[in-house]
Formats: sequence, C-alpha cells, structure tokens
Amino acid sequence: VRIDPSDRGFTLGDGLFETMCVVGGRVLRQGAHMARLSRGAQIIGVTMQPVDWNGAFTAVLGANGLKDTVLRLTVTRGVTSRGLVPPENARSTIIIVPSPIPPPMPPAHCIIATVTRRNEHSPICGIKSLNFLDSILARQEAVSRGADDAILLNTRGNVAESTAANIFAVKNGDIVTPPQADGILAGTMREAVLAETRGQERPLTCDELFDADELFLTNSLGIRAIASLNGRQIGSGNRQLSLRLAARLLSSEASGDREKEH
Amino acid sequence: VRIDPSDRGFTLGDGLFETMCVVGGRVLRQGAHMARLSRGAQIIGVTMQPVDWNGAFTAVLGANGLKDTVLRLTVTRGVTSRGLVPPENARSTIIIVPSPIPPPMPPAHCIIATVTRRNEHSPICGIKSLNFLDSILARQEAVSRGADDAILLNTRGNVAESTAANIFAVKNGDIVTPPQADGILAGTMREAVLAETRGQERPLTCDELFDADELFLTNSLGIRAIASLNGRQIGSGNRQLSLRLAARLLSSEASGDREKEH
Repeated sequence: VRIDPSDRGFTLGDGLFETMCVVGGRVLRQGAHMARLSRGAQIIGVTMQPVDWNGAFTAVLGANGLKDTVLRLTVTRGVTSRGLVPPENARSTIIIVPSPIPPPMPPAHCIIATVTRRNEHSPICGIKSLNFLDSILARQEAVSRGADDAILLNTRGNVAESTAANIFAVKNGDIVTPPQADGILAGTMREAVLAETRGQERPLTCDELFDADELFLTNSLGIRAIASLNGRQIGSGNRQLSLRLAARLLSSEASGDREKEH
Repeated sequence: VRIDPSDRGFTLGDGLFETMCVVGGRVLRQGAHMARLSRGAQIIGVTMQPVDWNGAFTAVLGANGLKDTVLRLTVTRGVTSRGLVPPENARSTIIIVPSPIPPPMPPAHCIIATVTRRNEHSPICGIKSLNFLDSILARQEAVSRGADDAILLNTRGNVAESTAANIFAVKNGDIVTPPQADGILAGTMREAVLAETRGQERPLTCDELFDADELFLTNSLGIRAIASLNGRQIGSGNRQLSLRLAARLLSSEASGDREKEH
C-alpha cells in the first residue's frame, strides 16, 4: 500500500485516526472508537464512503495472522489538487496498519511541557486528527529533560492532557480529570474510567497535580501511573488505585464484559 | 512517486512545506523560503539530508517543461514505526510537486472566523507545518458564509492572519501587520512588503480592520486586496495602495531586482 503525494492527509494533515487495542481478535471499545471517528469526520466535514469496519478489521487481522495487536485506522479527505477548500467529490483514503502491543510500562516520569500549549479554542483539539506536532514537540521536550512524557497545559494555564493520553488526579478518594472544554481529546479509556469510578470532570491546576495522592494516564492501550512530575514524587508512591483500576478495567475488557456499555 | 503509509508526514502531520512562485524559470524569494524551511526544521527537530535545491528545482521544472509555475516543496521526518518520539536515524522525505499559477483574483470578500483561533502559545503556529486543519476549518466557514477567505484571531482575540495569507491594514498612510508573537506565520511576501513600505508590526484589533482605509492579503503567490469584511465594505473601496504595491513588488521580483535583499 502506498499513498498518493497529493493525498490531503500528507499535504495538509487533513484527516483523522484511531489507535485500537485488539485482544483475542476483538477490537476493544470499538463502538467508542467508531463514534469518535464519526464525530471527527463531521467536524472537519469529511464524508466517508460506507465501510464494513468489522469486515475490514477481520481482514487485516487475518491477512497478518494476528489476534493480539494494535490497529491504527487512518482516514483522510483523499487526493485533491492544491488549495484549502476540499472539492465535494473527494474520496476519502482509509488505511489500517497493525503494530505490536507495547509491553507494560513502569510508572511514568513526567514534566509539565513549557514549549507549547493546547488550544482549547480550536475544535481540532477535541478530535483525533493528524495534526500532532504540538504533542511531538512536548514529547521531545520530555525526552530532552530525561522524562517519559509531558503534561500539556491549555492557553489559560489549566491542565489538559499528556502527549498521547488523558490524565486523572486522585485526592482523598476523589477522582478528577479535565473537561472537554479545557482542550483535551476525550479518550475511549478516559470514558471507561469515568463510568467505572464515577470520576468528576472539572478544570485541574498544576498545583493540584503536584498535591495529588495519585496521578495516572489513560489511553486506548492502557492505564499508566505517574511516578513523578518535574522530578517531584507524586503522593506516597503506593499508587494503589491506579493499579487496581488498570487490573479491573483491562480484565473486564479482555473478557468482553463492558461491550454492552461501550 | 508514492508515499509510504508509515511516513510521519502522513501519520502525524510531522513535516513542513513551502509554496513557491516560479517566473521565467526562477524561484521568487528562494532565499527567504529556504531560510524559513530551515528554521522550521530546527524547531521541530528534523535533520534534513543535504540537498542541492537549485538542482532539484531545475530538474522538476525541466522534467515537466515548466518555466512559470507554483512549486510545492514538502519535507517530512520520514518513515518510522509507531510512537511520537522520532528515532534518531529517520531519513526525511522530500517531495517537489508543480501546479499551475492561479489566475489573478478579484478583491476578496472575507469574514472573521468564529469556528477556531490560532494558538500564539505554540511554536507550530510560526512555522509552515503540515498541521493545517484550523485553516481548513476557517476556510470552510468562509465558503459556507458566501465569502472567499477568513481572518483568524489568536486566543487573546487579536488579529492574526487569513487561512493562507498575512494581513495588512492601511490607515491614514500607515501600514500595519500583526507581529510574530500574535500567532502568525511570517510569509516571504509579508517580509518583502514590510521592507518595501517601512510598515509596522504591532497587534491589530478587529475594530481596526473594520476602520481601515484599505486591507490586503499577502502570500508567496501575490497580493490581494480585501473588498469586504463580514459583509461591510472596507474604506472607500479605491484600494490604491494595495494595487500600487502589488504592481511594484511583482514587477520588481519578476525582473530579479530584489534578489540581493531576499
């Protein structure tokens, strides 16, 4: 499979993607991923041709002899001539690429990104688009400061999310994550955690992160505790809730219990 | 020429581009375009292999039998496996695609975009990256409101630029354009106009746009007057300065007079 150099996914970042975890041949939270893709397509005005997603995923898994893998689904506006306004007859490009499930990661050492901020004024911030340079910059800053990941603030200075995950703070048993209005991409695992824990969505400050009992990151591939932020240990370091939640959600999802809800 | 679907330009918008006007076989303001590309590559940390740009442009023009054309140069971080942190050995992808010079355009009817804003807190805003979805959204809003182009504000509410051009306001003979700190991409034609007119860089409000004697847009392909903003005519409608400036800059550039400066 090769891409036309005039594909707007390549020329203008004009497209969307989903990263989905596949366990035992089953795409976890497939409904939530497909709903988010449709919402993104509506926001940027991409008309996708009808696709039998189950058939497509099964075909890619079968052709590659895979049952446990990560599938990345990319949808772009397709091939057009130069110019920003898309022609009405553009036919979207759809690509599905498997890659190995990453190994379980130890708790993350994080920094607060200083190089850039998320733009809560842009609808692009709320969809999983191909415009990923701000996250790349922040991740590069993390690596250059000896950390694993970076937490991005929004333009108002509130906490938004990490470069590829949502963030949750736990304090005295309360579980909090920033709301969509603060410039986050609402992850499928974030949704599952909110449903499981009755967590709250409300603005979070940096001070609240440093003061938390536990912090953890969620994305479609899992839940990862945060060990430190800007070099300061978070809480007592026991991270009980993060670990319990990770175990509970992952086991129930792998066995399909949550399929009705998500 | 086809692109690998794992090229980070396609998967993450991880790259840069330049759109250059070629007249009589000569790339206009080539030095300024190449300087901007290098600055962008430095900001996102892309290491380009050494390229003989003159040789590359001449080869593309020759192979296509072209002397007057638009060249789009795209540089991406190259092909890598999944993940945000680029491997150190990534080899950048470089593509040069010609397309016809668009015909001269009548003065533009513009709107102030309401759907999104430029993020002056992000270095990505100041480089010509592949992350173009905010501009696409704003241009779609313009078309849906019966206009040609949209003026984007930044998160503070100051004027930034249009979806693919810088903006200048003329009032009582003073020529003003927003500064780089207000979330603009500093265009090569903007630079030429500032040098030619001793224009000022300072923050601009929406009120100042509506109150201007003339407004005009600049990008590498030319200078275009603005006829109206949100349906209101700008100034008396004579647009003398825009027209004079366009004629002067375009003729001097086509004849190569400005080559020493830019």
